[in-house]
Amino acid sequence: MILSFLQELAEYTQRTDQVKTTQRDLEQDGFCRNPFFHGIISEVPEEHKSKEGYTIVAYSLYYFSYKSFTGRAVFMDDLYVMPEFRGNGIGKALMTKVAQLGLAAGCKELNFTVLAWNKPARDFYSRQGCTDMTEESGSHYMSCKGDALEKLAKH
Amino acid sequence: MILSFLQELAEYTQRTDQVKTTQRDLEQDGFCRNPFFHGIISEVPEEHKSKEGYTIVAYSLYYFSYKSFTGRAVFMDDLYVMPEFRGNGIGKALMTKVAQLGLAAGCKELNFTVLAWNKPARDFYSRQGCTDMTEESGSHYMSCKGDALEKLAKH
Repeated sequence: MILSFLQELAEYTQRTDQVKTTQRDLEQDGFCRNPFFHGIISEVPEEHKSKEGYTIVAYSLYYFSYKSFTGRAVFMDDLYVMPEFRGNGIGKALMTKVAQLGLAAGCKELNFTVLAWNKPARDFYSRQGCTDMTEESGSHYMSCKGDALEKLAKH
Repeated sequence: MILSFLQELAEYTQRTDQVKTTQRDLEQDGFCRNPFFHGIISEVPEEHKSKEGYTIVAYSLYYFSYKSFTGRAVFMDDLYVMPEFRGNGIGKALMTKVAQLGLAAGCKELNFTVLAWNKPARDFYSRQGCTDMTEESGSHYMSCKGDALEKLAKH
């Protein structure tokens, strides 16, 4: 289910070529003793199921992280609602749940990234009181992967 | 030791008012069965100790994270080298170690944030083959904390 959402999300954000995780990866990494991530889903009653017959219509993937200055934090990697179910407060409800789970675990902040061109998402997050740290303090999100990561690891 | 580095780093990045973690927080969260973060340090021989007599001269704090599209990742929260020890390859060596530990744990990428005004740090990361995702794909780093987080958690 998560994988099918991932693919929808990838289509929406025009990154289908970037999905490398398999069903097996997600099972191994999320459902083990010391999971790399946690996931929550939103389910609608059978009578409101989607055109394709799904009752699970949204999901969020998050993990616990750490900021040396402020302590425990929660990082939300994905927040996805199927297009036909948008505008009903499902995204807000899922994000509220992530915030509640974070606070319950002693987290002081919730972090995530958003694509600058994704105006609907940015507006939504602004309405939830989120701050764009890239605009406010110039926090740039960086990445080292593939050959660059392999090269870095070779002293 | 980590806390004293944190304070130096906070001074360097002009964020001393933002350090809220205590010695106890760091001990509790980093040295438990299921730690929120991991830390590595660089130590120099006694004869090269710092002006104040320290032999531990650099540290990095990192944690394991997850990208639904690509799987396991490692997030480097801090990379700090005492000013008098900079330019000797210590930062590079620490970051190499984080990359090695990440790859050994099956991570596909190493992520972190850097402040836009911190030109020396940005140049250093570019030389290590890191990509600025904020500039390249417009990934903005977002945060929800304090009252905003409390409000979000209250449905």
